[in-house]
Amino acid sequence: MSERVTAVLLLSCPDQKGIVAEVSAFLYRHDGNIIHADQHTDLEEGVFLQRVEWELDGFGVARDAIAEAFRPIAERFGMTWGLSFSDEVPRIAILASKLPHCLYDLLARWRMGEFQVEIPLVISNHADLAPIAQQFGVAYRHIPVDARTKAAQEGALLRECDAAGVDMLVLARYMQVLGESVVSRYRNGIINIHHSFLPAFAGARPYHQAHQRGVKVIGATAHYVTRELDEGPIIAQDVAQVSHRDSVADLVRKGRDLEKTVLARAVDLHLRRRVLVYGNKTVVFD
Amino acid sequence: MSERVTAVLLLSCPDQKGIVAEVSAFLYRHDGNIIHADQHTDLEEGVFLQRVEWELDGFGVARDAIAEAFRPIAERFGMTWGLSFSDEVPRIAILASKLPHCLYDLLARWRMGEFQVEIPLVISNHADLAPIAQQFGVAYRHIPVDARTKAAQEGALLRECDAAGVDMLVLARYMQVLGESVVSRYRNGIINIHHSFLPAFAGARPYHQAHQRGVKVIGATAHYVTRELDEGPIIAQDVAQVSHRDSVADLVRKGRDLEKTVLARAVDLHLRRRVLVYGNKTVVFD
Amino acid sequence: MSERVTAVLLLSCPDQKGIVAEVSAFLYRHDGNIIHADQHTDLEEGVFLQRVEWELDGFGVARDAIAEAFRPIAERFGMTWGLSFSDEVPRIAILASKLPHCLYDLLARWRMGEFQVEIPLVISNHADLAPIAQQFGVAYRHIPVDARTKAAQEGALLRECDAAGVDMLVLARYMQVLGESVVSRYRNGIINIHHSFLPAFAGARPYHQAHQRGVKVIGATAHYVTRELDEGPIIAQDVAQVSHRDSVADLVRKGRDLEKTVLARAVDLHLRRRVLVYGNKTVVFD
Amino acid sequence: MSERVTAVLLLSCPDQKGIVAEVSAFLYRHDGNIIHADQHTDLEEGVFLQRVEWELDGFGVARDAIAEAFRPIAERFGMTWGLSFSDEVPRIAILASKLPHCLYDLLARWRMGEFQVEIPLVISNHADLAPIAQQFGVAYRHIPVDARTKAAQEGALLRECDAAGVDMLVLARYMQVLGESVVSRYRNGIINIHHSFLPAFAGARPYHQAHQRGVKVIGATAHYVTRELDEGPIIAQDVAQVSHRDSVADLVRKGRDLEKTVLARAVDLHLRRRVLVYGNKTVVFD
Repeated sequence: MSERVTAVLLLSCPDQKGIVAEVSAFLYRHDGNIIHADQHTDLEEGVFLQRVEWELDGFGVARDAIAEAFRPIAERFGMTWGLSFSDEVPRIAILASKLPHCLYDLLARWRMGEFQVEIPLVISNHADLAPIAQQFGVAYRHIPVDARTKAAQEGALLRECDAAGVDMLVLARYMQVLGESVVSRYRNGIINIHHSFLPAFAGARPYHQAHQRGVKVIGATAHYVTRELDEGPIIAQDVAQVSHRDSVADLVRKGRDLEKTVLARAVDLHLRRRVLVYGNKTVVFD
Repeated sequence: MSERVTAVLLLSCPDQKGIVAEVSAFLYRHDGNIIHADQHTDLEEGVFLQRVEWELDGFGVARDAIAEAFRPIAERFGMTWGLSFSDEVPRIAILASKLPHCLYDLLARWRMGEFQVEIPLVISNHADLAPIAQQFGVAYRHIPVDARTKAAQEGALLRECDAAGVDMLVLARYMQVLGESVVSRYRNGIINIHHSFLPAFAGARPYHQAHQRGVKVIGATAHYVTRELDEGPIIAQDVAQVSHRDSVADLVRKGRDLEKTVLARAVDLHLRRRVLVYGNKTVVFD
Repeated sequence: MSERVTAVLLLSCPDQKGIVAEVSAFLYRHDGNIIHADQHTDLEEGVFLQRVEWELDGFGVARDAIAEAFRPIAERFGMTWGLSFSDEVPRIAILASKLPHCLYDLLARWRMGEFQVEIPLVISNHADLAPIAQQFGVAYRHIPVDARTKAAQEGALLRECDAAGVDMLVLARYMQVLGESVVSRYRNGIINIHHSFLPAFAGARPYHQAHQRGVKVIGATAHYVTRELDEGPIIAQDVAQVSHRDSVADLVRKGRDLEKTVLARAVDLHLRRRVLVYGNKTVVFD
Repeated sequence: MSERVTAVLLLSCPDQKGIVAEVSAFLYRHDGNIIHADQHTDLEEGVFLQRVEWELDGFGVARDAIAEAFRPIAERFGMTWGLSFSDEVPRIAILASKLPHCLYDLLARWRMGEFQVEIPLVISNHADLAPIAQQFGVAYRHIPVDARTKAAQEGALLRECDAAGVDMLVLARYMQVLGESVVSRYRNGIINIHHSFLPAFAGARPYHQAHQRGVKVIGATAHYVTRELDEGPIIAQDVAQVSHRDSVADLVRKGRDLEKTVLARAVDLHLRRRVLVYGNKTVVFD
């Protein structure tokens, strides 16, 4: 948590010579003090990806003018790029259903200052978790969903998010599949936790599936939500050893700790602008 | 590696009261010195499973007579059971194709005395690995297989194994699917290593699949071979963290270490009579 | 979380023949329905340890009379033993200082029903965390400690715990060393989390030590508190990979997740009567 | 294992603005096709470290002239730096004592082509492992060492290494402490495996120490050898979970797999020029 404000540039483009030279010359020319730089070339796909972070203090271009100053370089290399600043505070809505462990964990991390974020809103298709939101001083909207009302209710959900000025959604064991209208509204801005090491045990009841199959390892996967269920770009995964001694209830218990840790790790990486999506994959500059 | 000879009883039966009392009373009555005992009850399936190991020295029933003495108890509870002795040395045939790392590892472990076993035979559908078998003083049979010759060649394979007095098969990255005749001949006696954390990435080219999917964890799975490809009871699994920096070649490289370690662990557990199969699962008394 | 009430017997004694036979015969004689049994023999130390759990429903000895009925067996084998029942609800005081993550995590788990426990009291040598206790409806006692007041303040601490009917203490990053009076009052009843994989980096500022040493793995250790700082019996440990990219602040951040997970795991194991202490070690019947 | 020859530049210097700009401009000016680049800034120590790898094919400076062309940049920033080429094949001497598992593993990896290296020599203070060296077609020198002969025998060891044209030493569970003459001769060129997660259990018999302490995790550490025993820069570490069920012999057995995997990983990283030492730490550009 550096006290100084930094700029973060995340970019990707077709791999070609001279990108690093050009970007680093740009920063050097304006006296930029780089505090983190990392890059990756996917040689098979021919894609170059880079993250650079530098201090605004002493930088020769005013904060407002940086994007404009950088644009010619971006255009020359055909970059997809984004510029952000470390003092920007995104606003998150958490979506949950009945299970509270990820919700508790996210709210506590927020209150402890682990995440530089605002969380103005919790949305759930059930009423059960309202006391937790209340305990942390966050608004709670109960938006029940069934097959008949789904489209209308997602409209309501989007309106609530807009009203709260929400930039991204975190699905904290939210048990509904989000429809196209929500997914397209928050592109690469919805993070979900799936309670298995995807692609194993996609779909419903993964711990039951895992127990049935007799695996010796269980896992959890945080990923961006796309239109294909459980198929979005993976941000973080972790696993735990299990044995024949573990019942389904034990897997659920052990899995809870994986879920909340992996989800929080993904949210943290996203908030610190450490994740770049390309194709259906992520580059995580950790 | 205790110097003293021990007897190992592995049993399973419908769960019911009095099993442990009866088995332990049997051993106590004959002055058995138990050095390992472990049990497991699968409450959902209603199955009880147990492993007991005790020293022959001082035991009140002669080695040859133990099975007969125990039989009434086994019959009373409807047990599936097996009795073995720690000085018995199983004979293994290793099946391999072109990749040498698991073969090298198993042969080296054997020569170092990690496995109490004989390895009289390596069988391959290719000629490439013959020098490795030769280097370790093991016979090498090259039995090429194609769709047309498969049935006949598996007959040849079984004859070689019979001639060498083989008790079990270890598939050290053997890239052929074994037919019914071999699988049924060595029931719960064929161990395979699959280069993914099953059930993810079953089938061909799992590292390519994993790279394509952008996972952050890769794995390896050792399992008993059944008629369903990659579906047999899992004995051991392990995983390693990977990142966007890892190409397919890197996954293959990191995976090799997982594969040989997990396969060796499964073989070791099997040889020390630590594994019980029930349904499509294992209990591993480690 | 079985709905049925069970009895749990935890025992240890000098290893000798007939223990399992006698204990299992006792349970069988009274028609006990065993739902978990595990044992361990430390062959070097000559110590036998066992955990047995069975349903009270249908057991032939009344709950109040079980201890008396078992006593002759315990005496015959010279056992150290304890009998508990699954519907007993221990009362915990959490001790914390300024860091909130373990406190938040324990309180949330309690509220979610992960722990079968009461938490009537949080004690701290600072005032900072009072709002968290309040948020969860738990009393907060601020008991500042310095070298001069330490003895007196530990007296105050014990009086608070007694007044609240506390059975055990959990040190959730409590940064004071507990004195003899507290440690001896709660023998094997104080669980601490140390932020390293002990015995590495015992003492102060382990993340700084780890960063200084350039390790590639960090860890956390939950242990019972004894008179020797950081030397008590270890209940649980876990680790995470780190790299040169991780500053001390990154180690602290990654370590927080280890700390709260490992501490919660140890508390959970303790509460489910899965831990037996002997010598300076634990047996964890998981 | 790219087929094309690449150049690798490893450098470190006081952190200052413009380094990346200058280095990348140098490569761009000469039409270098970068296939890997990574850098790290230790903000506390004020040290910048970088690895760049590019293809020789098409590069505008002849192989022999690259160092000279780069020197002005290196001097301007006060760099410590090294240039190497991917077709250079270092020559390794393996030092071992009586335990064969790491020796077997390294020799097998070499024969399988995992390491791009020559291994002309195995040196041991015992005669036991000679057959293994012979089996792999490698010379074996038995150089016994005791307190009286140590200095003289290290002279002999250095002469053998010189005669074999050795560039680096790998200590594959070599149980002798190397003296100053050897350590200074191969600065940052001796890799040792220690059978614990250092700094825990430094010194003798770490598995006995670990068992005595009752840890739930064991580990292994590969590090460069310096004059301080077990204190050199750590390259790689890994751990495995253990429990009360594991005797010292079990820890030794499980530890063997850690040792050989971690040692091989460190050797592989070193050979692929992925490791930079600064102070008593490493940066591992993996």
